[in-house]
Amino acid sequence: MNRIAEFAKNLGKDSGKESDNGAKDSGAKGAGVKDVDLETNSAKGTPEPSSPRTLPTEPDHSAAAGLQTLLDGKAAPYRKAVRETLEEKDLKLDLDGGIDAVRDRMYEHIKFLVESGESRHSFSKENGGSGNALAAVSGIETIGAVNPSLTIKSGVQWGLWGGAVDNLGSERHRHYIEKIQNAELLGCYAMTERGHGSNVQELETTATYDPDTHEFIINSPTDSARKVYIGNAGRDGRMAAVFAQLYTPGEEESHGVHCLIVPIRDEDGNPLDGVEIGDHGRKGGLLGVDNGTLLFNNVRVPRENLLNRFGDVEEDGTYVSPIDSRNRRFFTMLGTLIRGRITVGGAGLAATRTASDIAIRYANRRRQFEGGEKGVEKRLIDYRQHRRRLLIPLARTYALTLLQNRILERYDDMLNKQASGQWSVTDPTEEQLFASREMESLAAAVKAASTEHANKTLQEMREACGGAGYMSENLLTTLRADADIYSTFEGDNTVLIQMVGKHLLTAFGRDMQDLSPWDMVKYGVETAADTVRRRTGIRSGVQSVIDLVSNRDEDSLFDAGYQVKLIEDREQAVLRSLVRRIAPARKADRAEAAEIVDKTQDHLIAVSWAHVDSLLMRTMVEAELELPEGSAARQVFEQVRSLFFFDLLIKHAGWYQEHNMLPSGRVKAARAAINDLVDSLGPWSQVLSEAFATPKSAWNVPMLNDGGVDGGDNKA
Amino acid sequence: MNRIAEFAKNLGKDSGKESDNGAKDSGAKGAGVKDVDLETNSAKGTPEPSSPRTLPTEPDHSAAAGLQTLLDGKAAPYRKAVRETLEEKDLKLDLDGGIDAVRDRMYEHIKFLVESGESRHSFSKENGGSGNALAAVSGIETIGAVNPSLTIKSGVQWGLWGGAVDNLGSERHRHYIEKIQNAELLGCYAMTERGHGSNVQELETTATYDPDTHEFIINSPTDSARKVYIGNAGRDGRMAAVFAQLYTPGEEESHGVHCLIVPIRDEDGNPLDGVEIGDHGRKGGLLGVDNGTLLFNNVRVPRENLLNRFGDVEEDGTYVSPIDSRNRRFFTMLGTLIRGRITVGGAGLAATRTASDIAIRYANRRRQFEGGEKGVEKRLIDYRQHRRRLLIPLARTYALTLLQNRILERYDDMLNKQASGQWSVTDPTEEQLFASREMESLAAAVKAASTEHANKTLQEMREACGGAGYMSENLLTTLRADADIYSTFEGDNTVLIQMVGKHLLTAFGRDMQDLSPWDMVKYGVETAADTVRRRTGIRSGVQSVIDLVSNRDEDSLFDAGYQVKLIEDREQAVLRSLVRRIAPARKADRAEAAEIVDKTQDHLIAVSWAHVDSLLMRTMVEAELELPEGSAARQVFEQVRSLFFFDLLIKHAGWYQEHNMLPSGRVKAARAAINDLVDSLGPWSQVLSEAFATPKSAWNVPMLNDGGVDGGDNKA
Repeated sequence: MNRIAEFAKNLGKDSGKESDNGAKDSGAKGAGVKDVDLETNSAKGTPEPSSPRTLPTEPDHSAAAGLQTLLDGKAAPYRKAVRETLEEKDLKLDLDGGIDAVRDRMYEHIKFLVESGESRHSFSKENGGSGNALAAVSGIETIGAVNPSLTIKSGVQWGLWGGAVDNLGSERHRHYIEKIQNAELLGCYAMTERGHGSNVQELETTATYDPDTHEFIINSPTDSARKVYIGNAGRDGRMAAVFAQLYTPGEEESHGVHCLIVPIRDEDGNPLDGVEIGDHGRKGGLLGVDNGTLLFNNVRVPRENLLNRFGDVEEDGTYVSPIDSRNRRFFTMLGTLIRGRITVGGAGLAATRTASDIAIRYANRRRQFEGGEKGVEKRLIDYRQHRRRLLIPLARTYALTLLQNRILERYDDMLNKQASGQWSVTDPTEEQLFASREMESLAAAVKAASTEHANKTLQEMREACGGAGYMSENLLTTLRADADIYSTFEGDNTVLIQMVGKHLLTAFGRDMQDLSPWDMVKYGVETAADTVRRRTGIRSGVQSVIDLVSNRDEDSLFDAGYQVKLIEDREQAVLRSLVRRIAPARKADRAEAAEIVDKTQDHLIAVSWAHVDSLLMRTMVEAELELPEGSAARQVFEQVRSLFFFDLLIKHAGWYQEHNMLPSGRVKAARAAINDLVDSLGPWSQVLSEAFATPKSAWNVPMLNDGGVDGGDNKA
Repeated sequence: MNRIAEFAKNLGKDSGKESDNGAKDSGAKGAGVKDVDLETNSAKGTPEPSSPRTLPTEPDHSAAAGLQTLLDGKAAPYRKAVRETLEEKDLKLDLDGGIDAVRDRMYEHIKFLVESGESRHSFSKENGGSGNALAAVSGIETIGAVNPSLTIKSGVQWGLWGGAVDNLGSERHRHYIEKIQNAELLGCYAMTERGHGSNVQELETTATYDPDTHEFIINSPTDSARKVYIGNAGRDGRMAAVFAQLYTPGEEESHGVHCLIVPIRDEDGNPLDGVEIGDHGRKGGLLGVDNGTLLFNNVRVPRENLLNRFGDVEEDGTYVSPIDSRNRRFFTMLGTLIRGRITVGGAGLAATRTASDIAIRYANRRRQFEGGEKGVEKRLIDYRQHRRRLLIPLARTYALTLLQNRILERYDDMLNKQASGQWSVTDPTEEQLFASREMESLAAAVKAASTEHANKTLQEMREACGGAGYMSENLLTTLRADADIYSTFEGDNTVLIQMVGKHLLTAFGRDMQDLSPWDMVKYGVETAADTVRRRTGIRSGVQSVIDLVSNRDEDSLFDAGYQVKLIEDREQAVLRSLVRRIAPARKADRAEAAEIVDKTQDHLIAVSWAHVDSLLMRTMVEAELELPEGSAARQVFEQVRSLFFFDLLIKHAGWYQEHNMLPSGRVKAARAAINDLVDSLGPWSQVLSEAFATPKSAWNVPMLNDGGVDGGDNKA
């Protein structure tokens, strides 16, 4: 039995052997050797007591295929198709020639994607599309591995603008769809206003019905009502889906935010009367997207331009809607945002995977400073610090990618049920309502977690490639600059992550986007007890998976079940303590409630992140079971899973000890384990990034071929 | 006695009162209330037992002046002069019109700085300058608050290119200085090669003396010898200070890396024969700097072009040097890098201060979502999470700014002693040698710490301003993109931070840049015992300052002396454990030593950061004593100091508990204290950022004046 097989056996089945070198033993020992060292229990270079068996130093590249299958998930065929499209033509952003030239090329790329058939997936079958959300989202996301500008431009055109017409419109808007799909009619999703980013319900733009002419009058009453950051508005858009407060005659109050199609430019691209258009020009990134501003001065559009699926105005001015609750109507209309969030999370991860792939290839070829052998410089990957820098984020990228897939797959499942009539959008069952709120929370969670990770990791990968990483030709800074805004648009991460916690707190009993502090205190306390008991999973049957893996040695830090338990225990404890903190405030008045909510804001955010950690840890353990036992892919993946876990554990080591949930010896063992794992995985680093199947046009950058690396120009 | 005065009294003098509300009490109580809550001990909105007294909700803006005096330090007059220059003309980077237009404007700005007299400070008195390093560095750094490209372009021209000629040259090079100073002769500092970034001693470019013609032949033997990322090489440079291995006839071995003046372009800007020039074009940022590449094909320059202060070749080819040790000669020549490092650290902080200033002003004017009052949206600063996001990094910015000043002042002092002859550069005393090695470590520490903080904080401030923060016109993304590379150039942060640890380990007994793993094991263990005992300070007499503040209630978490002690205890413990880990390896061979060093790399890095923490904590406490007792500035500063401390403590809460150095109740109290402090400092946030005295041209960005904020276009 070789060492890997032995390790797999120890870890997977034969728990009796664990105590020889397991964490329990090490924990006890670590506690005895007080204050000896910071990072590991070993002082002599021998394996730490809690170490996993190291992988062979000669990596088996065939393992990449197994890992890729896992990472691609159900969307594998669609990702494959897009990757092939991306090999046909280099779609990377080319900034030469000024902003107009860049935009011209972007438009060509959009047309190229139309020809490849990509845009069909974004539209429902009844409107002539394939109605395949899995294909649509995974496709647009995969483009983000090469060119985030193209992802966002596509997302604006087909996902947002097209999505608004497709999902919020009716038969009378069907004639637009073909032109939207083939990019003949470019348009905008005009929601955000200068004064109202996250707080969509307070938009100021008005759409007032005039029964005399059967028209709506679209107006921006103030400068803070100006639509800003709107994709396609800067140059290419001809129409916009405009979100506005809907007013009908005789009613003082708005019917809430509704969406209308408003033409903004004529065929030659000149602004129409009453429409003031601005071009944002330079931004921190995404220079291939023409973001702009829109201001409306009493612009008239026909009554039929109201996207009327969930709310309509009859000729005489009567308002009608299939959804009684004003609140639920609003969130049903905002359903488009869920898809946007999943797409942005995915695009952030796609960029992150590309950057890791580039940095790992560089680290395996770039040398600096002599090591043990005189006159031979070490490769960057031969430095432990560099292995830590590359591989710890990589483990989290794996976890997030898998979670992203599961959420996308569940979203796709929901849409399929809605399309087939099993699930009514306007009149869902209680269970469906619950499930869609949970979906909303999952989308918010994965968007916030993935884009936060993307921003950190893209920067880390740039730095890991030194000066070469800063040259635009090597792609990293473009990915970094583009993905920056992912943390803000389609829902600011700080707002979204709180939504996750609020959902948990109310056990998905309420729509959370409009939850006032007072509501939160009230509903949070009412239902939180349920939440603490309830385990929410991404798929059904998750609990049993955990039970399955937990039949192992529960005391080993490397045991998958124990790992899940430690992470989930923290989630539950943090949630319980939040409930206790807000409980006494049930009878608070509005102002007091607001103060209590502000005072517990960081606690709420901690709850949300703890929930994300739980989702990720479970996802890793579930995914592992899909890999054939004994396969090289599984053996490597197990170490990635443990690396992800130990990183989480060390991040919260203070909390665990504060709550007497982890003895200091175990914390020491965890620190040592991270080092052992990156040492073991170092030689396999390229296998791990090959599994991302990044298109060659993205990773094959100049710094991997010049004289600065092994096999470069003058050294081959 | 108002509440602040009472607080100040409690904290500063009257320790007898502390137990009523001090941390000791709270710690004990916290430990009793097990598992109750995550973030604070309070569940009812009453002050936590360990809370400081809150500051008045109406801030006293006059406190900003006192804080500014503290932050400006001895360089105050020079910073003031540059700020006035920056108010005269808007020097922000303007990217309109393509790269050539940008570069033209940059050159105009450089000439403008010449006219303002700024460039004189970079040059020694004997070469016609003012010989004022304090003015030179603080001036160039202050420009970085507005335009990092201009800081770097100035730094390349006067600090690096000019600095090389000024410091490494002799009388025969004096005629260049005036033209360099007035920007008539732009030049390059051509050190980095494609294959050799951090490892300068292994540069491949050669300078071979030809005694027949009395010339040096400059040659790049391979593509990996190509000089890369060289500022001023892309367009403007006419000459370059080229670092190359020096060879003389009859000697097979190089005399080590030396620097020579090599003309690269003629007057019309065309490359000279044998010089191959490339333009890096697009980079991740610093688009105002024309970085390029240089390759030399046996280019001949006169013997006199060798910058010969520390090593010369006589006409007949004999090599002579006033410094016998080849190693010390090399590091003496690299002295220029120390100034570069201090400048870059300072420039990173300057950009960070501007970004914080902008984000804090925005947070005080931008509203989103209703709070306690119906129909009134809360300002961003009214959210605790936002206060945490802005103010926790701000506290670290304060600490780093103060440390930066102290290091710059000490550097200036060293140069003044050298200029006056009290300190010989070529033949220093043991004490001076020790001090200059310590200086090298301090410069590395502050550069790595400041630029790492800059990158994180600039991103955080961008995100804190949402979509508006992403628009280039609001400056944040430009600062962010520009400062990115600060973590790499003038010494990669990962390499520099390890140098700090290595210096500590050998008690400054060795030059560390070339320390092989074997050397490190050998010398580290020999002298480390000394280091553990020795306290290294930035200024003399520091220990007594700590003793002074420690005469307070040592058990209060808010006591300055206790805070310093906790942070320093960690530094010492981490260093001791590292020494123990490498001790058994004293008799290791080369390969084993390399492995041991790699296995302890993350531990070494932890030692370095712990040292940085100690330096910062002491600096904060020392600085506080400079503020008048009882002044508003002092009261605010005390809270900033504690906020900085608690953030550090929580970051390492796992370690402290692991080592039984902090009971869990105190960790809970520290978490609560952070929240109390940001609540207390929230209304004072603009006072804290006004103290940065950021030029208005930098902070007065469109998003602070448009309809998205209070007092914007349509709301005033």
